[in-house]
Amino acid sequence: MIPQKKMAYNVAVVGATGAVGKTFLDILSERKFPIDNLKLLASSKSAGKKMQYNGKEYTVEELTHDSFKNIDIALFSAGASRSKEFAPSAVKAGAVVVDNSSAFRMDNDVPLVVPEVNPEDALKNNGIIANPNCTTIIMLVPLKPLHDYAKIKRVVVSSYQSASGAGAAATMELMEQTKAWSTGEPIEVKAFAHQLLFNVIPHIDVFTENGYTKEEMKMYNETRKMLHSDEIKVSATCVRVPVLTAHSESVLIETEKKLTPEKARELLSNASGVKLYDNPDEKQYPMPLLASGQDLCYVGRIREDIAYDNGLSFFVSGDQLRKGAATNAVQIAELLIK
Amino acid sequence: MIPQKKMAYNVAVVGATGAVGKTFLDILSERKFPIDNLKLLASSKSAGKKMQYNGKEYTVEELTHDSFKNIDIALFSAGASRSKEFAPSAVKAGAVVVDNSSAFRMDNDVPLVVPEVNPEDALKNNGIIANPNCTTIIMLVPLKPLHDYAKIKRVVVSSYQSASGAGAAATMELMEQTKAWSTGEPIEVKAFAHQLLFNVIPHIDVFTENGYTKEEMKMYNETRKMLHSDEIKVSATCVRVPVLTAHSESVLIETEKKLTPEKARELLSNASGVKLYDNPDEKQYPMPLLASGQDLCYVGRIREDIAYDNGLSFFVSGDQLRKGAATNAVQIAELLIK
Repeated sequence: MIPQKKMAYNVAVVGATGAVGKTFLDILSERKFPIDNLKLLASSKSAGKKMQYNGKEYTVEELTHDSFKNIDIALFSAGASRSKEFAPSAVKAGAVVVDNSSAFRMDNDVPLVVPEVNPEDALKNNGIIANPNCTTIIMLVPLKPLHDYAKIKRVVVSSYQSASGAGAAATMELMEQTKAWSTGEPIEVKAFAHQLLFNVIPHIDVFTENGYTKEEMKMYNETRKMLHSDEIKVSATCVRVPVLTAHSESVLIETEKKLTPEKARELLSNASGVKLYDNPDEKQYPMPLLASGQDLCYVGRIREDIAYDNGLSFFVSGDQLRKGAATNAVQIAELLIK
Repeated sequence: MIPQKKMAYNVAVVGATGAVGKTFLDILSERKFPIDNLKLLASSKSAGKKMQYNGKEYTVEELTHDSFKNIDIALFSAGASRSKEFAPSAVKAGAVVVDNSSAFRMDNDVPLVVPEVNPEDALKNNGIIANPNCTTIIMLVPLKPLHDYAKIKRVVVSSYQSASGAGAAATMELMEQTKAWSTGEPIEVKAFAHQLLFNVIPHIDVFTENGYTKEEMKMYNETRKMLHSDEIKVSATCVRVPVLTAHSESVLIETEKKLTPEKARELLSNASGVKLYDNPDEKQYPMPLLASGQDLCYVGRIREDIAYDNGLSFFVSGDQLRKGAATNAVQIAELLIK
């Protein structure tokens, strides 16, 4: 499904008051997405709230099955259960849904898309296109040009994921813990399983039967789906770190064809979505503080792996609210109206 | 060299005022190391400072080549250049040196020892025994029993290293950045290459020719030396995270013989130096806040790796000032006087 060509489109943002929802509005504005009418939707709890878009005030409306009349494109980021319940209503009303949740990602008839990786898949949709997991997106942007050249067999990745990946309340919790520690007040823990300040937590999403978390299995399954390969294997360890925004990942790839660091740098310097940032002698390498607020994924620490013959290691940092979520979803919407 | 058997020994602590030096005193006291005379040594800058040991006050003396008269055991933690300059003087004076720096670790005639891994090596010394790199120690404590059973071929490790690994001033810097952020004051950066608060920095020690840092190459070389194997390959990525104390590591091992998670748990539950802490459903897994202040290395998140046939993944956290430095060094001293 592709929206009917227009000068400007009616767009609904579902989950507008969340961490990703707010970023949706920033990105739509920055990229001058051609919007005719904008509708901000959220749960009844947030309905009535006022939000700004391009200097104009909007009132957040309650999300219902009747919210999508005349909507061309609906950007969902309100959790998997809301997507499952309401996305079909949006499609029935004629909208194309770009869904940021995990609800439909592995469905056979739902394309999962990173525009730098598999843009062609976006057009083969039945009304719903899934936005991948944030950590997967940030890894796949640099993996794609390397895979095209050298064919990736295996990926070993350990992540350094920021608090805002768990939502706006989780970000607040880390900030409040920081202030509480500084003033000697007791540190409260609600959003995460444990205190995040001065800690790292190797637990994101729930645990599955095989000992991996769902977050880790998303990296396995979504990578294979988007690279159209049943052969690539991904071993992930996902870890929350006390960072406000932007996820980082330590990545090792084993390739079929030899891929030198020089060749990898050449491929990545020409790859869209990537900022090659790899001058260790000048203390230049990816870090979340650098990538935060950016749409490009910073890639550096590129080196020939010393444990695997055809191995290459690197480090990547990307803003998971932007490229890992809102920017990627808006880029998908742009593919649809191109 | 082994100190002459006595009821109690004359012990010198070199670098007594540093982060590890202070921990040396805690550990010597906790483990009731039989001390006759205690000598605290540091640079001229710190000479004259008062420190407590077992309720008694000691004055820090300036480290000179004549500092080691009548000393039986000298515990060094004042950086590699001081060790290179002064350890030979200590040996000449008749002391056995346990050196926490990287100065002698790869010397062929200097044993590198983790008591849970290769205690027999400690006795074959020429006056100097090296204490390994902290990140390597914390990884090797669980690796040893797994290697004995299944023979490790390759290790892929990404670290989450705390500020205090860079010394007392670096720890202070993270605490000051935390307070400055909380009160809206400017954040100052001196000890690290970049702001550490709300950031991760994939850069520990200096970069080498092959793109790895010295810290990462220590994990490669020291692992091979202590496991007496030229075949094991270690691919490390060392990353500083905003944690005060205790290093964590995401580890994948490839073994010659199949090692199931059940077998690994059985081996680790009987291994000395390890605390098996692996109940993800109860939110129990290793974290730096748990391991901090402990001598045991916490091991959890044990699972069959999904990318490698004979692969096993796990997560480990250990206090790098204690087991990663002072505790390990005092354990070596205990081996010598046993």
